[in-house]
Amino acid sequence: MCELLGMSANVPTDICFSLTGFLHRGGGTGPHRDGWGIAFYEEGGYRDFRDPHPSVDSPIARLIRDYPIKSHVVISHIRQANVGGVRLANTHPFTREMWGRQWCYAHNGQLKGWEALGLPFYAPVGSTDSEHAFCWLMGELRQRFPTPPAQPERLWEALHELCEHLRTLGVFNLLLSDGYYLYCFCSTKLAHITRRAPFGKAQLSDIEMVVDFIEHTTCHDVVSVIATEPLTDNERWCRMEPGEMLVWRHGEIQARYVSRMTAEAPLVSK
Amino acid sequence: MCELLGMSANVPTDICFSLTGFLHRGGGTGPHRDGWGIAFYEEGGYRDFRDPHPSVDSPIARLIRDYPIKSHVVISHIRQANVGGVRLANTHPFTREMWGRQWCYAHNGQLKGWEALGLPFYAPVGSTDSEHAFCWLMGELRQRFPTPPAQPERLWEALHELCEHLRTLGVFNLLLSDGYYLYCFCSTKLAHITRRAPFGKAQLSDIEMVVDFIEHTTCHDVVSVIATEPLTDNERWCRMEPGEMLVWRHGEIQARYVSRMTAEAPLVSK
Repeated sequence: MCELLGMSANVPTDICFSLTGFLHRGGGTGPHRDGWGIAFYEEGGYRDFRDPHPSVDSPIARLIRDYPIKSHVVISHIRQANVGGVRLANTHPFTREMWGRQWCYAHNGQLKGWEALGLPFYAPVGSTDSEHAFCWLMGELRQRFPTPPAQPERLWEALHELCEHLRTLGVFNLLLSDGYYLYCFCSTKLAHITRRAPFGKAQLSDIEMVVDFIEHTTCHDVVSVIATEPLTDNERWCRMEPGEMLVWRHGEIQARYVSRMTAEAPLVSK
Repeated sequence: MCELLGMSANVPTDICFSLTGFLHRGGGTGPHRDGWGIAFYEEGGYRDFRDPHPSVDSPIARLIRDYPIKSHVVISHIRQANVGGVRLANTHPFTREMWGRQWCYAHNGQLKGWEALGLPFYAPVGSTDSEHAFCWLMGELRQRFPTPPAQPERLWEALHELCEHLRTLGVFNLLLSDGYYLYCFCSTKLAHITRRAPFGKAQLSDIEMVVDFIEHTTCHDVVSVIATEPLTDNERWCRMEPGEMLVWRHGEIQARYVSRMTAEAPLVSK
């Protein structure tokens, strides 16, 4: 299984501390040796870095750790391949443009029957179930909303419904962003933590490293981190429920959707 | 004005030598201080690196020079801003997916009346004339060819016609690729060189550096480099004609289109 890492913050923030522990799992403390990637939404635009090699010894990963890029939204992924070979085109995160915004997506899990998902607008470049599901998701949203809806809640509800459908096909933990909002959907495993004043110290789980956030923050900063597994072992992370979707903005939860689906009666049939 | 650099090769080749001279122009020997970017089509996929800072002192540029990425097709750009502020979203190359391929684009020049170009499928994320023209170009191609044409020549002819139209709006020197072909369109300034056995030495124009290609190649390698201005001063570069389009594949010219437009009678009206 792959692992996900996301960040939403109210000030441009670097993710170096969390990333250090996370990328160490990529072939270090974890089995995720099949590539990694990270996407940043900065004040002035979007960029991503992807490498099909283990993050623990990737020179690009080293650059990113040593060259702090400050952003409001980050999405990162380390890969343990199941569907699709180990190559750059199969390395998350994936990106497509819709409504003049770059949408960025990373998936943890495995789907069945994904080949049947129709693709009206976007087509996968690689051969993963993940990218196919992303293209389907974006195509469905674009068909329903040729332009951005005036009420963003309509988009969020549609997104939750589509994620619930993907959950009927297998395991579908998701991070998605358009640079404004960070969407997290939990199928089996996602946890989050919000750090704000009074800031304290945090101790990484995967590597001997402590940071005292008070040295790096102001009292107005709000920074939330979302990950497949908690990254620190001296803080209290909140685990999401299956079928739950959170909409983050500036480090705060803007909206929360819970599953209306039961094991017996899925909302959307396969 | 910006500058363009492209490469097409029949074996995965690193572009470190040419890039060293080229990036030195980004705030070093040249005035292009407003960002730079580079895109690689590798065996396993596509990736790009972009930075809104001068390339001459960019840590990402240093990484790329020191970490040779081998690819068949490369597109790079250093920017001297005219339309659109200095920020990441305005930094070339730009990318959109069509037919399950990543299309990459970089432009040198400046256009007038570009705001009127219709955008049926793709929308710009930034505010440059360049990205708007790219979105128009890709949208036009996609409308004409919902799927890739069986005869690629039909696509090439359409592309040449669209480039000729953009040339009526101002200066439009272009590098474009889908990973298979590298397209170069010359509006005012583009030069190219093909290196093959017997390989010799080359001396960069912008920085004291000589490479002996014989040490880095086999006798079967064919590597072509395309640039706004020749990058070496001891080799013979071939300058393209206004309105000329070259289609490169594996370092060789696959097709060549010349302008049928005269100054008095443009083929496509404004």
